[in-house]
Amino acid sequence: MRREIGVAVIGTGFMGRAHALAYRAVPNAFPNSLRPRLVAVADVSEAGAQQAAEHFGFERATTDWRTLLDDPGVQVISITTPCSLHREMALAAIAAGKHVHCEKPIAPSAADAFEMMEAAETAKVVTQVGYNYIKNPVLKLAREMIASGELGEITSFRGVHAEDYMADPEIPYGWRVDPQNGAGALAEIGNHIVGMSRFLLGAVTQVNAQLETVNKTRPVAPGSSERREVKVDDIARLMVTFERGCSGSIEANWAATGRKMQLEFEVYGTKGALCFSQERFNELQYFKAGGEPRTSGFTRIEAGPAHPPYENFTVAGGHQLGFNDLKTIEMAEFIAAIEHGTPTFPDFREAWEIQRIVDAAIRSSAQGQRITL
Amino acid sequence: MRREIGVAVIGTGFMGRAHALAYRAVPNAFPNSLRPRLVAVADVSEAGAQQAAEHFGFERATTDWRTLLDDPGVQVISITTPCSLHREMALAAIAAGKHVHCEKPIAPSAADAFEMMEAAETAKVVTQVGYNYIKNPVLKLAREMIASGELGEITSFRGVHAEDYMADPEIPYGWRVDPQNGAGALAEIGNHIVGMSRFLLGAVTQVNAQLETVNKTRPVAPGSSERREVKVDDIARLMVTFERGCSGSIEANWAATGRKMQLEFEVYGTKGALCFSQERFNELQYFKAGGEPRTSGFTRIEAGPAHPPYENFTVAGGHQLGFNDLKTIEMAEFIAAIEHGTPTFPDFREAWEIQRIVDAAIRSSAQGQRITL
Amino acid sequence: MRREIGVAVIGTGFMGRAHALAYRAVPNAFPNSLRPRLVAVADVSEAGAQQAAEHFGFERATTDWRTLLDDPGVQVISITTPCSLHREMALAAIAAGKHVHCEKPIAPSAADAFEMMEAAETAKVVTQVGYNYIKNPVLKLAREMIASGELGEITSFRGVHAEDYMADPEIPYGWRVDPQNGAGALAEIGNHIVGMSRFLLGAVTQVNAQLETVNKTRPVAPGSSERREVKVDDIARLMVTFERGCSGSIEANWAATGRKMQLEFEVYGTKGALCFSQERFNELQYFKAGGEPRTSGFTRIEAGPAHPPYENFTVAGGHQLGFNDLKTIEMAEFIAAIEHGTPTFPDFREAWEIQRIVDAAIRSSAQGQRITL
Amino acid sequence: MRREIGVAVIGTGFMGRAHALAYRAVPNAFPNSLRPRLVAVADVSEAGAQQAAEHFGFERATTDWRTLLDDPGVQVISITTPCSLHREMALAAIAAGKHVHCEKPIAPSAADAFEMMEAAETAKVVTQVGYNYIKNPVLKLAREMIASGELGEITSFRGVHAEDYMADPEIPYGWRVDPQNGAGALAEIGNHIVGMSRFLLGAVTQVNAQLETVNKTRPVAPGSSERREVKVDDIARLMVTFERGCSGSIEANWAATGRKMQLEFEVYGTKGALCFSQERFNELQYFKAGGEPRTSGFTRIEAGPAHPPYENFTVAGGHQLGFNDLKTIEMAEFIAAIEHGTPTFPDFREAWEIQRIVDAAIRSSAQGQRITL
Repeated sequence: MRREIGVAVIGTGFMGRAHALAYRAVPNAFPNSLRPRLVAVADVSEAGAQQAAEHFGFERATTDWRTLLDDPGVQVISITTPCSLHREMALAAIAAGKHVHCEKPIAPSAADAFEMMEAAETAKVVTQVGYNYIKNPVLKLAREMIASGELGEITSFRGVHAEDYMADPEIPYGWRVDPQNGAGALAEIGNHIVGMSRFLLGAVTQVNAQLETVNKTRPVAPGSSERREVKVDDIARLMVTFERGCSGSIEANWAATGRKMQLEFEVYGTKGALCFSQERFNELQYFKAGGEPRTSGFTRIEAGPAHPPYENFTVAGGHQLGFNDLKTIEMAEFIAAIEHGTPTFPDFREAWEIQRIVDAAIRSSAQGQRITL
Repeated sequence: MRREIGVAVIGTGFMGRAHALAYRAVPNAFPNSLRPRLVAVADVSEAGAQQAAEHFGFERATTDWRTLLDDPGVQVISITTPCSLHREMALAAIAAGKHVHCEKPIAPSAADAFEMMEAAETAKVVTQVGYNYIKNPVLKLAREMIASGELGEITSFRGVHAEDYMADPEIPYGWRVDPQNGAGALAEIGNHIVGMSRFLLGAVTQVNAQLETVNKTRPVAPGSSERREVKVDDIARLMVTFERGCSGSIEANWAATGRKMQLEFEVYGTKGALCFSQERFNELQYFKAGGEPRTSGFTRIEAGPAHPPYENFTVAGGHQLGFNDLKTIEMAEFIAAIEHGTPTFPDFREAWEIQRIVDAAIRSSAQGQRITL
Repeated sequence: MRREIGVAVIGTGFMGRAHALAYRAVPNAFPNSLRPRLVAVADVSEAGAQQAAEHFGFERATTDWRTLLDDPGVQVISITTPCSLHREMALAAIAAGKHVHCEKPIAPSAADAFEMMEAAETAKVVTQVGYNYIKNPVLKLAREMIASGELGEITSFRGVHAEDYMADPEIPYGWRVDPQNGAGALAEIGNHIVGMSRFLLGAVTQVNAQLETVNKTRPVAPGSSERREVKVDDIARLMVTFERGCSGSIEANWAATGRKMQLEFEVYGTKGALCFSQERFNELQYFKAGGEPRTSGFTRIEAGPAHPPYENFTVAGGHQLGFNDLKTIEMAEFIAAIEHGTPTFPDFREAWEIQRIVDAAIRSSAQGQRITL
Repeated sequence: MRREIGVAVIGTGFMGRAHALAYRAVPNAFPNSLRPRLVAVADVSEAGAQQAAEHFGFERATTDWRTLLDDPGVQVISITTPCSLHREMALAAIAAGKHVHCEKPIAPSAADAFEMMEAAETAKVVTQVGYNYIKNPVLKLAREMIASGELGEITSFRGVHAEDYMADPEIPYGWRVDPQNGAGALAEIGNHIVGMSRFLLGAVTQVNAQLETVNKTRPVAPGSSERREVKVDDIARLMVTFERGCSGSIEANWAATGRKMQLEFEVYGTKGALCFSQERFNELQYFKAGGEPRTSGFTRIEAGPAHPPYENFTVAGGHQLGFNDLKTIEMAEFIAAIEHGTPTFPDFREAWEIQRIVDAAIRSSAQGQRITL
C-alpha cells in the first residue's frame, strides 16, 4: 500500500478546487509520490465546505479552519483564501507544525511575507506558494537552457502578464481592488511574471516603476450609481536590473481588452533567445545563434517526453498539458519536498522575494525614482 | 454520499493509464456525475496489473480479464488492449451485461465492428469508443456552428492527421503494422480525422482513396538485418463525398517527419469558415462572411467558459485544457449516458460507420476506383 | 549607357499593369540586366492603351496588337490578355521572331499549349509564363534543399491554392467561368500549386482527380434573374504520383470563404520537412530531423540576404518582398535568359507540362479513374 | 504628357537606393502623381555616384552635392547620408528653396532638428522624414480606428523595435555607435517605434527611461585587439505618458539575438485592441469588445483593397506589399504634398518631436528621473 500524507484545504473557490483536484491527481501522474489523503476541507460557508467534501472526496468538512491545526491526520495545509487572511492562517499552521502551501500573493506586503517566511524557516516546515505557471515543462527547459549557458550571456528580458478581467469600469469595488488583499494588477497577476523573471534569471537588484489606475472609480455594488475611488493599479510597468548584470522590463495589466492569458516573456542572450506565451504554453520558441543564415530562425519547440515531467501525463509528444496539470506538478513537487527533505520552489522565501519587488515597484512609482533592493 | 459506478479497465499501457486517470478525474470536474469506483484492473502482466492498481487505486488487479465478467461490482468495462483483442473482450463484456468503453479502432474490420455493434444494441448496453479529440469544447462549438447554419451551406472540407512516429524505416515490424490489429496510418490515426469529419458534417457516401506504403520493409527485430514486408499504409489520401452534398479530402500519415499531432481541418461554408489544429487545440479560427472588409479576417477564438464543458475544469478563460482533460470529458459523457439513458457519442454504431469508411478506402485504393458506401 | 531591350505589352488589366511595373523595376533591382525599354502597349480600348502608356511610360499606345509584330524596336512581347487569345497572339509573336512572355494559364488546353511550345522551340525564341509565386527567394531555397538532398528522400506532398473570389453565387457568368478561357478553379489558380509541385518535386506521372461545381448556375448579368449553367469546377482535388516515387495531394478552390491567398504546401522527407504559405510568403518553416528532441521543432526562416535574389531589393533581412517584387524577379530572369541564352523557367514547355496535368485531372474526374500521364 | 518634378538624391547606400527606387515607382502606383524626374545623384565616391546614375537612370552624377542647390531642374532633394551631415545639407537645400526629404534620424539632437524645422517652415518648403513603416496601409487603418473611437478610450500602449544587427560585440566601432550620428539603438531604430506611437496616439508628455550599453567596448577595426569604449545605448526602455491620458512602454534594442525586424506594438482601448508586428506587416490583429464570447477573439486582418493605398499596388487582397512599396507610398505622399500644398507627414516638425522624446529619454536615463516634455 502506498504511504499517504494527510492534506487539508482552506477555501473552496477557484483555487481551493484547483488544489483538491491537483492533490487527487498527484499519485496518478507521479506513481512514486506519497498519496495525498484528503482529510479535511474548510470554508466559511458550511454548504461550500460540504459540497467540496462531496465533490473531491475530503473525509470531513468544517467551517472552522482552526480545527485543522489539532488534527494529527493533517500534515499539509493548503491556504486558498483571500490574501488578507493568509498571514494569520499560515502562522497558525506553521505553529502547529504543518507544512503549508499558500496561494499567491502570499501576503499584502513584503513585511507580512517576511514574518511568514521566518516563522516557517524557524519551524522547519516545508512551504510552497502557488506560482503554477513555472511548473510548465517547457519553462523548466527555458530555465535549464539559461542556467547551462546555452543562451550565452543574457542581455535582455521582456515580460508581461496582461488579462482583461478588470477592464470593465462597471465591475464593482470588491476584494480584488482592496489594498488589504494585496490587490492591484501588479500584486495579483504581475507577480507571476515577476516570479517568472526570477525563476529564469535570478535576483532583481533595482526597480523603476510606474503604476496607473485606469478605472479610477468603481460602483460600490453592481449597478449602483454610488462609486468608490480605486487606489490600486490597473497597469504597472517596471524597468528592472538583475543581479547577473542584465536588465529588463515587466508589465502587469488586468485591463487589457481581449487578453485572457497574455503571460509572455522574451529572453535574449549572446548565443540565443527564447520566447514564450502562456496563450500557447505547450510551446517554446528558440533561436540558436551561429547557425547557417539561410536556415536559421526561431524554432517552435513543442512540449513532449524530452521535457520532464511531461511524460508523467502522457507518453506521446504533441498531446499537451492543461492548466490543471501544471497545478498537479506543483503539488507533486511540494509533496516530494516534504517526503525527501529536498528544497521546494517557490517557497515562502521566494514569495517574499517576489513581494519585495512588488513593494519596491509601488514605492518607486509613488516616489518617482528608482529603488535599489 | 455520491452514488458510484463500478469500473474495470483491461490493459495498462498508454490508454489504460489514460482511462484510469480520466475515471478518477470525472467526479472532480463533473460533480453531479456518478462517481467511478475503480474496482479492478486487468493485464496480461501480473506486475503491470499490480502496479496499475497501486498507482490508480483500483481495488484489485488480475491477469484474467474474464474474472471481471462475473464481478457484480463491475458495471463498466474499458478495453484498452491491442485492436485484435477488442472483439472477443467486448462481446464477452456485452454478454455479461456490462457497459463497454473500447479504444479505437474498435476492430480491424467493419465486419467485426458490425458484430460488436449489433451485440451491444441487442443487449442494450451503453457503448463508447475513444475518439477523444472531438470532446474538445471548441470542437463542440464547431459542430454547433455548422449544425445551426452559422457557416451557411457547407461547401468543402479538408482534413489531415499526420504524425511522425513511424517515419523511421528502422522501427521494427510489430503490432502497429500487423494487419490483424487494424493497422496502418489510416486505421490507427486516420480514423480520428475520418471520425471528426463525420462529427462535423455527417455521413460519407463515397470514397476515392489511395494508400501507400513508404517504408516497404522493416527489420523483424531492433537492429536486425532480416526485414519483413509491410503491407499496411504509411500514408492514405481520401477524396470523400458527404451525404449533405459537399465534398472533401482527408489524409492520414504517420511518416510525416517533424509532426507530432497535426490533426487539422478546415471547413468552408457559404457564410463562414472554420480552421482547427490539434497542435493548438484550445483555439478555433473562425471567419464570418459578410463583415466589413476593412476589419474582416479569421478570428482566433480561445477556449473559455463560453464553451462547455471548459468551465468544469477551470473557471477562467485562457487557462487551457490538456489532453487528459479531453479524456475526462469523454468518460464523463459515457457515464452520464449510462446514468440517464441519454445517447452517447461516439458509440459502437459510430465506430462501425468510421470503420466502414476505412474499409472502403482500402478497397478503393486496391481497386483503383471510387467506392459508394 | 546600359544596353536596352525593347518591350511591348498586350493587355492593360491587373496583369498588364503588373508586367509594366515589373519591367520598369528590373534595372533598379538587377543593375546588370538589359534595361527594358517600354516601346509599346496594346489594348482593345484606346483609352486603356493611352492611359497605360501615360502611367507606365510606354513610348506608344495602340489598339492593334498586330502592329507590334513588325516593330523592329520590339524584341519582347508580353501577353496578358484573356486566355482564349493567348494562342493566336503567341503564335504570331513567335512567327515574328519575338521573345514571348505569356500569362498563365498559357492556353485552355494542353493541345494548344503544345502547339505554342513547338512553335517557340522551333523558332528558338525565349519564352516564359507568369507563374510568379515560385520566384520567391524562400521557394528557391525550398527547391534547393530538396534537390540537394537536405530533406532526404521525399515521401509526401500536400498542396492547396484556395481563395474566395468566386464563392458568391451571385457573381455573374463571365469569362472566368467560360471553358474557352481555361476556366475553373484548377485551371485558373490550381495551376499555381500544380506548377509549384513540379518546381519542387519534378514530373507527375499519375493523376486521380475529382472536380466539383459548387455554384451550379450564375446570373447571366449582375442582378439578373436569368441564370446560366456553370460547367467548370469551383473545387478540384487531385491525388498525384511523382516520377521520383512519392505521392501527394493538391486542391484548388476558388470558393473558400475567407481565404485571399491560401497557396500552401507541405513537403515531408526522410530527413526533414518544409511548410510554406503564400499568406506569409517571406517565411519558410523547416524541420530538420535528427536533432536533439528537447530543442527540435519547425524553424521559421525569414527571407533575407542569404536567399538570392532577396538582396537585390533590400540589403537587410526582415524587410520583406511584396508581390510586385516577385514579378520583377520573374521579368529579370526572363530578360537574363534572352541576353545570355540561359534556360528560363517556367517556359512554354513547362506551362504545357502543367496544362497536361490540368487536362488529365479533368479527364480523371469525368471518367472516374486514375490517369497515367 | 504627365507633368514632372525634378529630384536629386544625396547618398547611394541602402537608403539612397531605396529612394531612387521609390521615386521611380511612384508614377506606376500613383498615376495621378507628378512624375519624379531623376535629375541628379550625389555621392562622395565618384564611382558610387556614376553607378547609381546608371542603375537608376539619374541624368547626371556628381561628387559635389552643392551643385544640386543651383540646379533649377531640381525641386526636391533627398538626403540619405549619415546623420551628422543632415543638418548642413538640409539647411543648404532649404536655403536654395528646395523641398527636402531627409532620412531618419533627422539630426543627432533635438536642437539641430529644431533649427532645421524652423528653417523649413520659414522658407515654406515641404519636408518629409523617412519613417517608412507608418506608410503601411494597415497602420493607416490602425490610426483611423483609434482616431474614430472604434477602440474606445485608449488605456495602454506597448511598443518595441528590436533587431540583432549590433548584437555581436566584435562589430567594430564605427559611425553606427558614434554619438555624432544620432547613434544608439534608441536614436537609430527606436525612433521608428517612438514615431509610431505618436502616429497612433499623439503627443508624449512624460518620459522615464533607462538606456544601457550591452557591448561596452568594440574593436577599433575588424579583428583588432585594440578596443574603444562605446557610449551609446544598445538597449533603451521608456515608460511614456501620452497627452491623451494613457501611458505606455517602448523598447529599442539592436542586440536582440535572432530578431530581424521586431517592430511591434499593442494598443488597448475600452472597446477594442490592436496588435501589429512588422515581421508580418501585411496583417493587423484586431479585438472588438462586446461581441458574443463564444466567437470572440483577435481577428487577423489581411491587407487588401479595403486599405488604401494597397490597391495602387495590386488589385487583389492577400498579394502583399513589400518594404519597397512602403517607401513608394512615402514618396508619393511627399510629392502630393508638394503639388497640392496639403500637409505631409512626418515632416521636420514631427521629426523634431520624435527627437525631443529621444533626447528626453537620454536625459531621463542619465539623471535617473522622469522628464516632462
